[in-house]
Amino acid sequence: MAVSLWKSLLQTTKSRLFLQRCVSLYNRAHGFEEEEIKKKLQQFGGGSINLSKEDNGIGVLTLNNPKLMNAFTGTMMLELQERVTELENWKDGKGLIIHGAENTFCSGSNLNAVRAMSSPQDGMNICMFMQNTLTRLKRLPLISVALVQGKALGGGAEFTTACDFRLMTPGSEIRFVHKQMGLVPGWGGAARLVQIVGSGAALKLLSGALKVDPQSAVHLGLAEETLPSSDETRSLEEAQAWLNQYTKGPAEVIQAVKKVVTAGRELQFEAALRAEKDIFGTVWGGPANLQAFAQSTKHK
Amino acid sequence: MAVSLWKSLLQTTKSRLFLQRCVSLYNRAHGFEEEEIKKKLQQFGGGSINLSKEDNGIGVLTLNNPKLMNAFTGTMMLELQERVTELENWKDGKGLIIHGAENTFCSGSNLNAVRAMSSPQDGMNICMFMQNTLTRLKRLPLISVALVQGKALGGGAEFTTACDFRLMTPGSEIRFVHKQMGLVPGWGGAARLVQIVGSGAALKLLSGALKVDPQSAVHLGLAEETLPSSDETRSLEEAQAWLNQYTKGPAEVIQAVKKVVTAGRELQFEAALRAEKDIFGTVWGGPANLQAFAQSTKHK
Amino acid sequence: MAVSLWKSLLQTTKSRLFLQRCVSLYNRAHGFEEEEIKKKLQQFGGGSINLSKEDNGIGVLTLNNPKLMNAFTGTMMLELQERVTELENWKDGKGLIIHGAENTFCSGSNLNAVRAMSSPQDGMNICMFMQNTLTRLKRLPLISVALVQGKALGGGAEFTTACDFRLMTPGSEIRFVHKQMGLVPGWGGAARLVQIVGSGAALKLLSGALKVDPQSAVHLGLAEETLPSSDETRSLEEAQAWLNQYTKGPAEVIQAVKKVVTAGRELQFEAALRAEKDIFGTVWGGPANLQAFAQSTKHK
Repeated sequence: MAVSLWKSLLQTTKSRLFLQRCVSLYNRAHGFEEEEIKKKLQQFGGGSINLSKEDNGIGVLTLNNPKLMNAFTGTMMLELQERVTELENWKDGKGLIIHGAENTFCSGSNLNAVRAMSSPQDGMNICMFMQNTLTRLKRLPLISVALVQGKALGGGAEFTTACDFRLMTPGSEIRFVHKQMGLVPGWGGAARLVQIVGSGAALKLLSGALKVDPQSAVHLGLAEETLPSSDETRSLEEAQAWLNQYTKGPAEVIQAVKKVVTAGRELQFEAALRAEKDIFGTVWGGPANLQAFAQSTKHK
Repeated sequence: MAVSLWKSLLQTTKSRLFLQRCVSLYNRAHGFEEEEIKKKLQQFGGGSINLSKEDNGIGVLTLNNPKLMNAFTGTMMLELQERVTELENWKDGKGLIIHGAENTFCSGSNLNAVRAMSSPQDGMNICMFMQNTLTRLKRLPLISVALVQGKALGGGAEFTTACDFRLMTPGSEIRFVHKQMGLVPGWGGAARLVQIVGSGAALKLLSGALKVDPQSAVHLGLAEETLPSSDETRSLEEAQAWLNQYTKGPAEVIQAVKKVVTAGRELQFEAALRAEKDIFGTVWGGPANLQAFAQSTKHK
Repeated sequence: MAVSLWKSLLQTTKSRLFLQRCVSLYNRAHGFEEEEIKKKLQQFGGGSINLSKEDNGIGVLTLNNPKLMNAFTGTMMLELQERVTELENWKDGKGLIIHGAENTFCSGSNLNAVRAMSSPQDGMNICMFMQNTLTRLKRLPLISVALVQGKALGGGAEFTTACDFRLMTPGSEIRFVHKQMGLVPGWGGAARLVQIVGSGAALKLLSGALKVDPQSAVHLGLAEETLPSSDETRSLEEAQAWLNQYTKGPAEVIQAVKKVVTAGRELQFEAALRAEKDIFGTVWGGPANLQAFAQSTKHK
């Protein structure tokens, strides 16, 4: 699939599938041979990515490899891709909470797997695979929240930036530890961090490998707030209550809201205006709009 | 006119008309038949858009349809376009204050008009017409302020984002109520809101249809400050005094300042640099510059 | 060299020279005849630009023309270009501090030189020359800090924005005085200021020619912090200590961190992702990375 497919979709498609299509950043011209990468990843097993889709339109995605602080194995990367595809096709979805098993978020990649693939090309292949998946995750027409319990380290810190919002429990931390491993982010975490906190703060967090506690994260605009509880179950409930503030109403309207914001964030200004107009066209005269018109004559 | 006319202008024109030309985002390829849209809008009358241009170079634009909280009728949309054209041609202009009649800002579109045009294509046509006008409004070489008295709702909230700054009176509110009408912004309000407050805050304001009071607006960076008075006349005077801080000096210099900031906001970095250099060329060696050189040898 | 060379480099080059190449924004199509401009600048002498490269990987660049508050003469512009080239080739560099001689930063251009070149084309030629140099300065794979002692006025204020960070001493000020000279920025200062503080604050600073003291600068996000000392030597030591927090570790890793942040700041999102992946490939499996893997099996 072409690199710019998403943009051309935004500019030309009038259909309701708008922005929901599975799109890859990379094609073979970038040395991206997805099937070969998948075969390699298949060899490094362990852990799982679990998804439950609730009736209220909120999904819960769990990174599950607790004996390694939920570090990503190869098969977890493959499963994540499948779960994202499932979420792209979830008609009734409105929100998504992502958290890690056993009260900690994620410590990045599993070193046994990455060591076995230490050539630059292998490293970049994993980056391309994860960038594709995380870009699709961030563009999901769902309002997404990373619930950071415990630690989000390295690739785990990068993963949190693929959500719209971050909520942190007391005592938790986000830390881009890459520098201490002689590395920089490669899953798109640097590009997304610059978007979220600006380039100055991003440069400090990455070059200092700074440990970001909830208070600093809120101050930087990296997290929305510190939840009251550090208990695993209760903080998940608190995250759901927080998200509920923003997911009331019909799924097609919530999804359209996420789409206009995605367009505003990722497209140049004039392209964002055209996308906004097209997305407006998908809800104007739709069932929720007609019902609201029937009830009110007061506002636009 | 071509979609990218503005950009090509910025990259190639050396003339002093730079950025001042009336430019449309849309051409027929986007299904935009401006004359047909205007004929339809002409059928929905009521209200007016009034402009007074003061000798000090500050214009006051009044949204005037007070029996409907200054909601936009079709003819008001047409008049707005004419007023913006008039402002584009105002050689001596430096600043602009936009407010609503009878101490409230604007409640968006007039529902009688929009109901009569409820097909998706009609809805998108109005969006294209209003996006063109509001994009031209935001790019005016004038420093513009939305004075929010009372309520700015739906399209009225979107309208405030087409100004450089927002000032709010005590007790006033800005609220993107679109979700409650089964809608999303379509006048470019989402794209502009993301630019002003960032994508995270924009997503919360739109998906929660949050009522933003002056204190929250200042905290979010949506408004500059809360004015002391809620009285209609006195708050207009306060807005003028606020704007006066930034409009001292010759019109050609104030206009050039607005243009370099517009370039920095809307263009990619390298194109913004080239535009800045060209705009610099329009004032370098000009009358204000030569006079200042004659008086001082101290600074650049 | 073509305008978009830097971008095409980012998208295609896999080499370790990535982003380090000397690139010009301008070619002859923009009326940029570099050799002619250099000949003219050569005629306006005085002052110097001094560079010392320390063993710890931190360079100190001094703007030295104290009898004119370190205003730029023509030969200082030429020397700055040479120093930037030297820094681009500094393999072991990690950080850079830029300050002015005799406890003040810089007052912009030397008026004797600029008056002699007051045609619009001459003015734009200097802008193109300085934009090229300052763009290369900002893209250096070094973490750069402007140490603002005393005053940074006009072009001096613009110059501070070509660094990643600004630190200010008590009583110092940054002031874009251009409006008072009948001018706007032309060295790229407006485009960079919008990136750093947003378009609203940039519009206020430029149109009001506001004097920004350290406290306001920190509040606006224009400066990182106020240093404790206003003494020339001691504040330079404090700036070095501040920078040391972010330059620990091997030069190739610090440089890669700066590069991913530069990509995130200057490129469109998808291009930034591809650049991040390529930059990741330059450190993955490199000496610092292999050594870290050998010591730890805990994090990505």
